Amino acid sequence: MHEKKYPLLTDPRDTRFLTFRFLQTPQGRSRTELYLIEGIRHVAQAVEQKAPLQSVFYDPSVLSNRFGRKLVDRLLRRGMPGVRLSPQLYRQLTLAAEPQGLGAVMRQEWTRMEGLSITRNSLWLGIEAIESAGNLGTIIRTADAAGVAGIFLIGTDTDPWDPATVRASMGSLFSQKFIRCTAREFRDWSNARGVTVVGSSPKGLLSYRDFRCRWPVALLLGSEKEGLSDHLKEACDFMVRIPMVGRCDSVNVAVAAGVLLFEMSHQVSRTRRPSPG
Amino acid sequence: MHEKKYPLLTDPRDTRFLTFRFLQTPQGRSRTELYLIEGIRHVAQAVEQKAPLQSVFYDPSVLSNRFGRKLVDRLLRRGMPGVRLSPQLYRQLTLAAEPQGLGAVMRQEWTRMEGLSITRNSLWLGIEAIESAGNLGTIIRTADAAGVAGIFLIGTDTDPWDPATVRASMGSLFSQKFIRCTAREFRDWSNARGVTVVGSSPKGLLSYRDFRCRWPVALLLGSEKEGLSDHLKEACDFMVRIPMVGRCDSVNVAVAAGVLLFEMSHQVSRTRRPSPG
Repeated sequence: MHEKKYPLLTDPRDTRFLTFRFLQTPQGRSRTELYLIEGIRHVAQAVEQKAPLQSVFYDPSVLSNRFGRKLVDRLLRRGMPGVRLSPQLYRQLTLAAEPQGLGAVMRQEWTRMEGLSITRNSLWLGIEAIESAGNLGTIIRTADAAGVAGIFLIGTDTDPWDPATVRASMGSLFSQKFIRCTAREFRDWSNARGVTVVGSSPKGLLSYRDFRCRWPVALLLGSEKEGLSDHLKEACDFMVRIPMVGRCDSVNVAVAAGVLLFEMSHQVSRTRRPSPG
Repeated sequence: MHEKKYPLLTDPRDTRFLTFRFLQTPQGRSRTELYLIEGIRHVAQAVEQKAPLQSVFYDPSVLSNRFGRKLVDRLLRRGMPGVRLSPQLYRQLTLAAEPQGLGAVMRQEWTRMEGLSITRNSLWLGIEAIESAGNLGTIIRTADAAGVAGIFLIGTDTDPWDPATVRASMGSLFSQKFIRCTAREFRDWSNARGVTVVGSSPKGLLSYRDFRCRWPVALLLGSEKEGLSDHLKEACDFMVRIPMVGRCDSVNVAVAAGVLLFEMSHQVSRTRRPSPG
């Protein structure tokens, strides 16, 4: 049984390999509702957190790490589908400067709005149109660290399963709830559920430090260049700004997300009072 | 006089072009003490802030923006050296997905430790070995926005003039003071000048929100993977952590820089009391 091995792919026209390549494209991900992850740490986290792994792929000539090899053996023995890839094929699937030789296909998990349970002190995040996949991944990682209960991806411009986003999220993808919705659906949800909506803008009237959260609360972030659309600005109960001291008129959107989410997270941990409504 | 034009380069072996290419390498930058900037906004900021511009380069076929063209005309009339580049040559100098067709050669500006004036409420930043050039640029931008008085680049592993760093710093490079030093020199400086040194680590004993700054203060940041070296940990008066709620055990280093620097910046703006020492 231990002698069993995953089949080796060397032909770039093999349909199994072409499926991996397809998942590198937005179309491939949206049609199949699958995505790729990469690296020993990510695959190990997916297994540990019981995320929906569909199959694994690895390059035996690169996967020298003992823990990584054991992980592959374990998955093989469990009956997880998978393939070995030649270095030429593996290289086409990696974004890493120093690839570790292990990756997996995952099923996208979306949460439906109706199924969300909104506790009194919960913190939510809405993202409208972050342009940089790396920024989006960093925001997802930050949201997880700050205790965000779920992330609304508003509109269709943000893809949490983009390989560069997955990479920057450092595995926090697996423990996060993602909800896809329109701006109107988000507004209706926050209204109906009594969720305070806070937007971030360099022109916000309130400094984020002077603002006292009414809970539950959702922070809205817009694109790097344009900020929030007018449609979503209207959904905001408050607009806060991060006061700038230097010549800079703004900070990176992932940095802004960190500053604001940790402030909110701090306020809730300090108060633990029931929110009105 | 308005008919004057910058000379056109089309030969990739032209020594003027090879100089630009040399500045894309760490060796080129350290030998010449020059660096490249790119984009209309960056060049305009450099001019406005009287940063030491050495020469400009542009691709007339790409530079369609009226403001950008006027800027080039103004620099030409002022006698600023420069060249026009063919699209083939310009493309080799750009990191932008949609290049604007304008860039410049700048002189690196370093500040000497001895020349620093340390006000009572000043906030400093020390960076040891940030691996990602993009992260470093984002940190520089954040430091500027949070009112950092100067950035110590400790050791030789961080290059603020790397093209990807310059790009992510969004022009805040020109208004910032950079000091290159060893870990020992930094320790001696902070000791002699009574600067409180705060390190950041997921294992820090104090939550950053419970920590009350004694001013002046310097925040130290280490590499993404390893954090601060033991040598620099010893220089710290305090180690603070950002409390994590989710499964994530850390946040991106530029996000951590933002959370900590804005907390410090907030504390000083609120207190404005003379610090002891």
